[in-house]
Formats: sequence, C-alpha cells, structure tokens
Amino acid sequence: MILKRWLVGDPLKTAQAAHERLSKRLALAVFSSDALSSVAYATEEILLVLVPASLAFAHFSIPISVMIVLLLGILTLSYSQIIFEYPEGGGAYIVSRSNLGVWPGLTAAASLMIDYVLTVAVSVAAGIAAITSAIPGLFPYRTILGIMAILIVLLVNLRGVRESGKVFAVPTYLFIGAILVMLGVGFGQLLFGQLVPVAPQTLAAQTAVESVSLFLLLRAFSSGCTALTGVEVISNGVSAFRHPESKNAAGTMGMMALVLGTLFLGISTMAYHLGVVPKDDETVVSQVARAIFGEGALYYLVQGSTMMILILAANSAFAGFPRLASLLARDGYMPHQMAMMGDRLVFSNGIMILGVFSCFLIAAFGGDTHALIPLYAVGVFLSFTLSQAGMVRRWLTKGGPHWKEKLAVNGIGALTTAIATVIIASTKFSHGAWIVIVLIPVLIMMFRGIHSHYKAVADQITLDRRGQRPPMPRRNIVIIPISGVNRAVVRAVDYARSRPGEVRAVFVETTPEDTARTEMQWAQWGCGVNLVVLPSPYRSILGSILDYVEEILEKEPDTWVTVVLPEILPARWWQNILHNQRALLLKASLLFKDRVILTDVPFHLTR
Amino acid sequence: MILKRWLVGDPLKTAQAAHERLSKRLALAVFSSDALSSVAYATEEILLVLVPASLAFAHFSIPISVMIVLLLGILTLSYSQIIFEYPEGGGAYIVSRSNLGVWPGLTAAASLMIDYVLTVAVSVAAGIAAITSAIPGLFPYRTILGIMAILIVLLVNLRGVRESGKVFAVPTYLFIGAILVMLGVGFGQLLFGQLVPVAPQTLAAQTAVESVSLFLLLRAFSSGCTALTGVEVISNGVSAFRHPESKNAAGTMGMMALVLGTLFLGISTMAYHLGVVPKDDETVVSQVARAIFGEGALYYLVQGSTMMILILAANSAFAGFPRLASLLARDGYMPHQMAMMGDRLVFSNGIMILGVFSCFLIAAFGGDTHALIPLYAVGVFLSFTLSQAGMVRRWLTKGGPHWKEKLAVNGIGALTTAIATVIIASTKFSHGAWIVIVLIPVLIMMFRGIHSHYKAVADQITLDRRGQRPPMPRRNIVIIPISGVNRAVVRAVDYARSRPGEVRAVFVETTPEDTARTEMQWAQWGCGVNLVVLPSPYRSILGSILDYVEEILEKEPDTWVTVVLPEILPARWWQNILHNQRALLLKASLLFKDRVILTDVPFHLTR
Repeated sequence: MILKRWLVGDPLKTAQAAHERLSKRLALAVFSSDALSSVAYATEEILLVLVPASLAFAHFSIPISVMIVLLLGILTLSYSQIIFEYPEGGGAYIVSRSNLGVWPGLTAAASLMIDYVLTVAVSVAAGIAAITSAIPGLFPYRTILGIMAILIVLLVNLRGVRESGKVFAVPTYLFIGAILVMLGVGFGQLLFGQLVPVAPQTLAAQTAVESVSLFLLLRAFSSGCTALTGVEVISNGVSAFRHPESKNAAGTMGMMALVLGTLFLGISTMAYHLGVVPKDDETVVSQVARAIFGEGALYYLVQGSTMMILILAANSAFAGFPRLASLLARDGYMPHQMAMMGDRLVFSNGIMILGVFSCFLIAAFGGDTHALIPLYAVGVFLSFTLSQAGMVRRWLTKGGPHWKEKLAVNGIGALTTAIATVIIASTKFSHGAWIVIVLIPVLIMMFRGIHSHYKAVADQITLDRRGQRPPMPRRNIVIIPISGVNRAVVRAVDYARSRPGEVRAVFVETTPEDTARTEMQWAQWGCGVNLVVLPSPYRSILGSILDYVEEILEKEPDTWVTVVLPEILPARWWQNILHNQRALLLKASLLFKDRVILTDVPFHLTR
Repeated sequence: MILKRWLVGDPLKTAQAAHERLSKRLALAVFSSDALSSVAYATEEILLVLVPASLAFAHFSIPISVMIVLLLGILTLSYSQIIFEYPEGGGAYIVSRSNLGVWPGLTAAASLMIDYVLTVAVSVAAGIAAITSAIPGLFPYRTILGIMAILIVLLVNLRGVRESGKVFAVPTYLFIGAILVMLGVGFGQLLFGQLVPVAPQTLAAQTAVESVSLFLLLRAFSSGCTALTGVEVISNGVSAFRHPESKNAAGTMGMMALVLGTLFLGISTMAYHLGVVPKDDETVVSQVARAIFGEGALYYLVQGSTMMILILAANSAFAGFPRLASLLARDGYMPHQMAMMGDRLVFSNGIMILGVFSCFLIAAFGGDTHALIPLYAVGVFLSFTLSQAGMVRRWLTKGGPHWKEKLAVNGIGALTTAIATVIIASTKFSHGAWIVIVLIPVLIMMFRGIHSHYKAVADQITLDRRGQRPPMPRRNIVIIPISGVNRAVVRAVDYARSRPGEVRAVFVETTPEDTARTEMQWAQWGCGVNLVVLPSPYRSILGSILDYVEEILEKEPDTWVTVVLPEILPARWWQNILHNQRALLLKASLLFKDRVILTDVPFHLTR
C-alpha cells in the first residue's frame, strides 16, 4: 500500500478531473508521438523488403515513400472531418458503431486493441534498437531493456495523464528538432557535394537492370505504411484538448501530418542518397545520422531523442487503450472494472492489462522490431477503413451543409485505406499478419460473450415492471455451528435470539467426551436454544454441517437457513496459522447454496 | 479433489481406527527399520573418520563397533522399562515431561522433531546411495531421486499405517535375510581362507605404528553412534501394537536389538577383513557385498533390499513425527491442526510438514549422506538422555517393586547416553552439530510462543464462572450497501426488514445521474427504508462505506452494526472475473471491526 502510494502518488479527487486537459503544445507531445516516431523504422522496413531482393531496387523506396505521404494527406483530411463530427472523441469504435452497427464497431474495437498492444511493443523495440545502435554493447540485453522501458511508461501512466504530458513534451520537440537539423545538414552536404555514401556499391548497383515484381513493391509499400500508424490517435482523444476541443485537435493533427510527412520523406531520401543498407544491429536512422554527423554529440542526440519519442509513442497507447477499454466496458463488451477510474483519475486496469500484453509480445519476439512489424499495420488500416466507411454512411444518411464534399473526402479515404488494408493483409499474411486476422474474430467473440453475460445478469436481476416484489421464503431457521461453549458462541447465540426465527445450535461430535462436556455447558449457557448433535463418521466437521444444511433446504422448500457463525479473530494476522480456517471454509462452501444467509458474528481477541 | 481420492484413497470412518493395529511381525517392519537400516551407513561413517587420518587406523573400527553394541544393549534394557511404564506410548517427550517438567519435555520434543526430519533425509540419501553404488549412472541424479522417494513415502503414509505395514514387511525381512546370508558367506570364505581383500594395502598398512589421538577415536565413536538412531522408535508407538501392547512392544524391541547388533558388528568386521576403504561413489556395504558375491544377483539383492529398508526407515519417521506433533498440539505447543486426523485416520498435516522439511534438507545437502550425519545423532542422544533421566526421577519418586534395580538400569542408561551426547556434540560441533544445537532452543521458543497464544485465547473466550453473560450492545443498526436497485437488493431489504433494528440502505454517489435514478427507483422499491447517499470524492466506494460504518461505531458505542450485503453470485466460476469483487473486499475489511456483524444475502444467477 505504501509502495503503491510512493509509486503512483496520492489519490486525486473526482473534482480534479476537469483540470486534466492538454494545451495544443502538450497534446502534440502526447498524441503525435505515435505517428512521428514511426519514421524511426518505416524507411528501414521499406528497404528491408527491397534490398534483400536486389540492391538495385533500393531506389524504389523514394516513390513508395511519396505514395505513403500522399496517403497521409488523404487520411489527415478524412480524420479532420471526424474530429469535428465527434468532438467527444471519435475513435474508430465510436464512428463505426454509431454509423455501421455493432459488428463493424466491434471489429474496429478489436483491431484497435491489438493495434495498441503492438504500438507499445513495436515502439519500445524500435526505441531500444535506437539505443543499441549507438551503444552496441547493450544489444544482447534488448528484451530485458524493452520490458524495463514498458514498466517505466506504465508507472508514469498510473500517475496520471497531465504529468505524462509535461514529462514528455521536451523529448518530442527535441526529436523533431534533431531530425530536422540532421536532414538540413544532410541536404546541405548533398547540395555542396560533400555527402559521403555509406555503401557506394548500392548506388552503383542501380545501373544493373533487373525486373521488379509488383508483389515486391506492394510488400514494400505495406511495410512503409507503418509510418501512418498513430495518425488516428488524436481523433480518439479530442476530449482531452482544451476548449475549443475540435478546432485545437484538428489543428494539432494538421501540424502533425506536416511534420510527419517532412521527416519521413527526408529520411527516405537521405537513406537512398547515402546508399544505406539495413543491418541487423544498427538502424537505418542511426546509419544516416552517423554518415552526416560522424560520432559526435549530434549523432547521440538523434539516437537519444529517437529512443525517447518511441517511448513516448508507447505512452500514447497507454492513453488510448484504457480509454477504448472503458468505452467498451460502458457498453458491456468488456468487464465493468475497465470502466472504473482509479485513485489517480486514470483507468488503471486498462493500463495494467496493456502493460502485461506488450511485455509478453516483447518477450515472445525477442525485442525485434522487424519481427513485430507484419502484425502491426493490418489492425490500424482495418480501423481506418471502418471509420472512413462509417463517415461515408453518416454523410449519406445525415446530410448537412457541404455533405457532398465531405462525402467525397471520406469516400476517397475509405477507398484508399480499404485498398491498403487488402494489400497489407495479403502481402504480410504469412509473415505474421495471419495472427491478427485470427485474433480479431476471437476478440469479437469475447466481446459478444461478455455482453451476453451482462445481458443475462440484467435480465435476471431487473425488477418486475408491474412493481411486484419477488417471492420470499416465509420461514427462517437459524443455525449456529459451535465447536464448544465459549464467549464467542454466547455472543452469537445472544445475537441470534434477538431476531425472529427458530434457532438451533449445531455441534459435530468428534469424541463422546467432548459431546458430553459441551451438552453440560450448553445446559447452563444455551438459554434454552435447541442443541443438535451431528454424528461425523469421517471426522469431517465441515461435511457434517453442510449435509445438515442441505437436508433442511430439501425438507423445507419455503425456508431461509440463516447460518450464524461465531468467529474468533486473532489480534495479529500471523496468529491465523494457529487457528484452523474452518469458519473461512464454511463460509466459502455456504456462499454457493441458494436460500442460505450467512451471518458472521466476530469475536475479536485483543492479544 | 478426485486426484486426492485417487492418491490417498477414500475416507475411513473413525470406527475403523481400532483395527489399525500391528502384529509383532508387521510392527518389526514398521518400527525397526529406522534402527536396522542404520547399519547401511554406520560402519562407513566410522571408517570415514579413521581412514582419512591414516590407513593404519582402520582396525580401530572393531573395538568402536563393540562399544556401540554395548551401548545398544544398555539402551534396549532401559527402553524396555519405559515401554512397560508407558503402555500408551512413551516417547522422550512424554517421559521427560511427566517426570522432569515442561522445559526438559519440550527440549526432548524439539530434539525428536529435528531427529525425525533428519531420519528421513539421511535414510533416503543413504538409500539412494545404495542404488547409485550398484548403478553408477544414476549418481548425478541422487538429489532428485531422493526427493521422489520422499514423495512416494509421503503418499503411502497419507493412505494410512496398516497398508504401509503390509507394503513394507517383505523388504525388511528380505534385508535381514540378505545381509545375514552375505555375512554367513563372507565368514565362511574367511574361515576357509578364500576371502580376497578389496584393498590389501590397508591391511598391510597396519604394521606401520602411528599414534592415534583420543579425539579422533571419540569422533569415530560419535559417527558410529548413528547406528543407534531409531532404537527408541518402538517406545513411541506402543499403542499401535496388538494386545498385550507393552509385552509385544518390548519383545519386538529385544528382537530388533539382537538383529541390529549382529548385522552392525558383522558388517564392521567384514569391512575390516576385506580392507574396505570408503569411496565417494560407492558405499562400504556395496563394496563388501561386491567382494563377497561378485556382480551376481545376490549383490543386487543386498543393494536393493538395503535401499528398501532405508526407505522404510524414512517411513518410520512418517509414523513418529505426526504422532509427536499431535501430542504437542494436544498440549497446546503446536498448532491445533496437527492434532486433527485426516480422511484416512492419519495426521495428514504432520505428514505433509515432515515431507516438506526433509525434501528441503535433501536439496540443501545435495543428497549426500555423509554431509547430513553430523546433524543427526545429537538430537537422538539428547532425547535418549532426557528419557532415561526422566525414568531415574520416576523410580526415585514413585518407587514400586524392584525400583532399585530399575533405577540402576535407567541410571546407567542416562549416564552413558549423557556421556555420548557430550562426545557427539563436541566432536561434531563444527561439522554441523551446531545447527541442531542452535535449532533446539529456537523450536522450544516456538512451542512456548504457541502455548502462550492458546492460553491467551482461552483466557479471553472462557465464560464467567459465576454464570454471568458477557455484556451485549443493546441497539442494532442494519446497513444495506447498494449500488443500484435490483432483485438482489430487494431480497436483502426484505430479509433485513423482517428482523428488528433500524434499517438504512447506503448508496455511494459516483455520478449525480446515477444517484437520481437510484433515488427514484428506491421510492418505488425501498419499502420506506431510509436511503443514505454518501459522497465519494475519491471514487472509492469501499472506502466511503467503511468510513460510514466507522462513524456509526464511534458515535454509538452501545450499538451493533449489521451489514446486510446483497451479493450477486454468477452461475459459473469464470464469470466472477466479469464482476468486481467489491462484496469480497467489503467482507474482508469489515471482518476486522468489532461490533460489526456481516450478513450475506446471496442472489444466485442461473445462467
């Protein structure tokens, strides 16, 4: 308990919730990191498809990057419309559920949940890769470093979102600045012919003519699409912006798209001109930075800030996942506990679950970014497609001013993301996308199962509309199990006698001497209450009492059985091992019998 | 549960207990194995002291063995007297407690408990050594083999003593037979000059004259005293014999001493004549058997039956330890649970504890007999000394026919065992005996602590002698915590209203809308019961309810607070994760408040 307070801070009052809003500058740090950070690995993933096929294909990375930036533009426009239509936060789940129905909504939710877990795993793995590129000695420890990083982010989030905004604002802007400086210096060197290629043979190889397959190009495109993951994060969190929420959110999103497009295209171009080839133990960004800056402080700044923004990206998932889980919980598709705010006004349960699953992924895939990537983009693009399709349906049914223009924007968005989804799912299927394609229906089934359980519970506990009270057993038999006569028992007897109903004390015989002594004492202290002595051929006191209760329940179908349990409670917890836990076991067994009311009469020892 | 039934069998009726008595032949198998089996390592332990000092000292093993057999004679006579004086079972604890007082009694008990654990560990380690001597390939696995052996014995004992008697009768007699045949053949070979020494240099080395220190001889004697461990086992278990118990037990004990003396002296003599030198990976008995029989079936019979009787010795501790623990528990020096017989009429808790501790010892000492031996004999001889001293005191105070002769017998016993105890403790102190010497007072403190706790409990719960009932709070306030209005709540309200006392429903506000809805529904269903709405600034529903209860308890010192908890119970266990465990947490927190009565009104879901 003290540890928890020290780690996550003192509880916050509900009234403090309203203050937990973000300025545009802080919001860019919290919500854009997911999108921006993907430039750390997107170019590398494109090259990892092209270069192993042939060094001569490296130049295709430029047109592919341009395509992806175009897609980014389309997405940004489409999502801006969503932000204005859903100022209370328009995630793919809300948009597709409200416009397309339950099943598409749950599909979007399932994709998003998987996506959030992967965001954490991929970002942390890439962040650790940025560090191990700079300090190769840490390479063997990347799994454990990744898990430690997740735990730190987890803790920061359990403390609350505002603090995390502050903590993470500096690194985001540091990253943007560092990469821009790197690109500026790089293009300067290029312009003045001072750029020294890392691997000249790559550029030379271009002259060799080989035919490239369309499949390979599509696969490279799919890999590059990871650059777009996280673009939607802002639309999920509109409500965390300051007033006017939608305007601020849309502006932040436009800014983010601009920065993202610039950085991504810049890195891809630079990598191409430097002839960078992906390596196992050094990232493409690290190679680019090293070629431009050498081993100086600026190189380490690029690597350090890359790591930090990737950790920030993981952090953004820690904001999004619990929010989504709480929405699902409110609709009855996730356990109700996910909708409860913890001490620090965050959805602690969701945060914990995301932490566990992402740690598991890091461990299972050995902290390798490249192995995780094929699982990543499918879910994201499926949710993109569903939200855009939802918006298309919305304009068609709702209309409103300029609805045709808006329809066109979202229509193009839906079409392009749908095509991208199909491309990604098919080209990456055997590399791991199949896991996600299998997992989505499994999650949907889970949502439905939870929902139907809650519905069944509601049906069973809802009161009669006509105001008729549910029937109640008429009689009440009170049973006091005793193992001797003492103050605790006398207390329970006095309590039971003060209530209506027939009272019986029940004693389980172990030895005839015990029984005789108890009967004698009962004559003095029992106040005329009937003492029933039960045989116990197998020495199971618990079993005999349960059998007796069972018997009464069967014989008298219109009776409550109230079991009044005299319970002696030790003064100190460790003394419990000196007392048999019969009361606890009896309570646990009786809880599952209908028409049995359990009453605990405690007797507290003072020493 | 099913697994338990399959492993330990169906429960036995208490009435079946009387039949669980042992014939003399079965009793010898069950109770003598501890003593007899020690010949498997006692000779080796003597040689392990003498030979590393000088090969020339090996011949001292013969006079030392003779000394130990003399001690055996004294002990057997002394213990026969105990058996007749304590027909209900006269272990060292009983004898020293009843004659010398509580502290000596607890000292004996502590020594015995340690001794039982060591009996299991040493016997199993030696048993596994017998096997690995015959099959050297198993040598690296001796720790895990030892733990498996303990688990098997544990299981047999959880099934009940009669069955274990049957199972183990054959191997005991097989062992006695096999060793007697081995010794017979060996002495035959010796007589006819056909005996081929294993290591002739040992015998040759005798001619070299070296001075032997007294300390070395005493240390060798100490090591050999392990042969006497287990001699007392029968006196602990007189009540398990058939009628006439004492006579049968004393007879069995005499028989056992005779066999033990013969085997021990025989093996020591044979080992000397064969010039056997202890080896790390082959036992002395194995070397002797191999020299006499070669690699034939008879050799394997000796090794196999040695292993089996050693496992049986471990088994005898599984009979003795739980019995002693139950005696201590009845006197309030061990947790009461130790005195409860399980399904199969055995003290299951004691059996489990012994199993755990002996497995721990085997693991900690790597299954090495020789490493465990220095811990072994101290406790045994301390308890011997205390029982004999107790008997001396008994004859002095009680008198009776022939009391002087009896006093002389026990006096000699007490004196010799006291000397042996001092010798063992001093010569083995640094090799491990110190652990036991530290542990004994720790255990005694534990016994005293448990005892004073039970006494404090008894003082607090015992009823007034003058028949005055303890005071009771006069008023009763009933509180029903609700989180909404539903069938479960209505049921709890109806139950609470049928009893005397002021009833209040308590609702913790989370959102104003929830409160408004609940108040409206309460107007229809509340039956006029007062609804208290509690604020919850920190969203902790549990905390608000606890604070409210606390407040009532403080304001009204003469009032019970009965908390009636409407509890919705899912139909299937896994559905529990879909319900928050607020009821459970509330119950756990309220249990520790005085004057708070907890009443659970269950509402069982059917699907």
